Amino acid sequence: MVDIDVPNGKPARFPTPRPDDPRLARLSLNQRTIQRWSVGEAVEGCLAAGIPSIGLWREQIAEYGLDRSRRTIERSGLRVSSVCRGGFLTGPEADRAQAISENRQAIDEAAALGARCLVMVVGGLPAGSRDLPAARRRVEDRIAELAPYAAENGVQLAVEPMHPLFCADRGVISTLRQAVELAERFPVEQVGVVIDTFHLWWDPDLAELVSRAAERIAAFQVGDWITPFPADALLSRGMMGDGHIDFQSFSSLMQQTGYRGDVEVEIFNAEIWAAEPKSALATVVRRYVEHVLLS
Amino acid sequence: MVDIDVPNGKPARFPTPRPDDPRLARLSLNQRTIQRWSVGEAVEGCLAAGIPSIGLWREQIAEYGLDRSRRTIERSGLRVSSVCRGGFLTGPEADRAQAISENRQAIDEAAALGARCLVMVVGGLPAGSRDLPAARRRVEDRIAELAPYAAENGVQLAVEPMHPLFCADRGVISTLRQAVELAERFPVEQVGVVIDTFHLWWDPDLAELVSRAAERIAAFQVGDWITPFPADALLSRGMMGDGHIDFQSFSSLMQQTGYRGDVEVEIFNAEIWAAEPKSALATVVRRYVEHVLLS
Repeated sequence: MVDIDVPNGKPARFPTPRPDDPRLARLSLNQRTIQRWSVGEAVEGCLAAGIPSIGLWREQIAEYGLDRSRRTIERSGLRVSSVCRGGFLTGPEADRAQAISENRQAIDEAAALGARCLVMVVGGLPAGSRDLPAARRRVEDRIAELAPYAAENGVQLAVEPMHPLFCADRGVISTLRQAVELAERFPVEQVGVVIDTFHLWWDPDLAELVSRAAERIAAFQVGDWITPFPADALLSRGMMGDGHIDFQSFSSLMQQTGYRGDVEVEIFNAEIWAAEPKSALATVVRRYVEHVLLS
Repeated sequence: MVDIDVPNGKPARFPTPRPDDPRLARLSLNQRTIQRWSVGEAVEGCLAAGIPSIGLWREQIAEYGLDRSRRTIERSGLRVSSVCRGGFLTGPEADRAQAISENRQAIDEAAALGARCLVMVVGGLPAGSRDLPAARRRVEDRIAELAPYAAENGVQLAVEPMHPLFCADRGVISTLRQAVELAERFPVEQVGVVIDTFHLWWDPDLAELVSRAAERIAAFQVGDWITPFPADALLSRGMMGDGHIDFQSFSSLMQQTGYRGDVEVEIFNAEIWAAEPKSALATVVRRYVEHVLLS
């Protein structure tokens, strides 16, 4: 495999694992990390690199076709660690019915694909509103409306606490404590939480909260926090090892709390998107084994 | 007064308060809001606009001269709501002595100027380190070393919790809870906290923590959170009313907890810096009265 860290064919300090390497047993590729690949190309890329699991995005599923995506996934034998994403539940009452309807459709898609969970990006402040507590209450109300339907269809809603950077415009659930307290109001098969290193690494209560989350953890996503902070906040995630996050400590916490699921690499980064996809994927595999590795 | 919100001389929706308006009794201008003004110009600007208090920056004090700044402030009758800033305490042991020495000098300057407090931006992860808990412990150790010296000189150290956005590179104290728990280990005359709306507005525990902070609150700084997030994260603060923060609720919390100090407008924003200073200051005054007003 080629590798974006290895220019001119020089050997890497740390060799890229081969597809049959048992250390890849829990690695998942979130499809947006290699954004230009279709569902079919991402599945082929995972198979070639020895990655046994994939996180899919609804836009790419729609482009490729839901039924075709389902057949491609089934033939591949890949696990679907998540479907991204449902949510955007904070709108005014007039928007409620449409938000519920869209999220039911997202649940149906996740069910059709056999996904472990549907990631919920809950939404920011509605346009013109500064009432953050009210937006947070609406999230809770609408999760309550969706949760039984999700579980009936075999899909766990995975509430994603987002970095406070995104509180105004993407996600008013800003801490793992909020996400866990919300999830705990429901049966575990209905609502879990996402633990994403990029969103949560700064939290002084992280160890306590990961331990408390325990069997509520529906997905574990990894990406690094890099500085200087990139000009586009949405594309500010880095490859593991390029930034400030202590992934070894994070992985230890996940081991200690008994997490047994996949580790999904989810990075939105303009440089990685510009790189040749197979080469970028080789770097993902290498950096995962070097910095994160859950066994 | 002119006003950057009032083009072509049209009347503002909300008139700019006159210098003798009693609603300005607790307003303070953080000097960096109008970054091109010297200490002398900022003092004149405050007097002309009826602003009775000022937050000073050490770089501008050094340019203007400490003794000259002291005399200018004394003659003006302005209060000094803060000196910005001390801190950067997270470096390795080899850098400890220099950090302590620099902070003692900052304390001396704050004392000479009769400042209410010295704002402490505690510092991010040291270069090459990913050990966030260790960096946080070093902050505590070094605050403990500085705190008695500060109080002996009549200066309160004001620990500033910074938005988690800045955890890696500017401030590892990310929540008001961390800052309050740190401050509570010391006598109140030694260590307090800064409450800055920009850094803290997203915190789901804000009301509880502002109430707990109570007499520990050394400074109250205001600036808005704007979207889309600007390309330079350091210049991402907005004029009150231009963003997503509910200042009325914030001011209510501050009232309820018995805060009696000044309200310092601190905005780092390229557009405000590019505006004509008196016009920008008129907008500060108007927006303070319209959105924040502590009486």
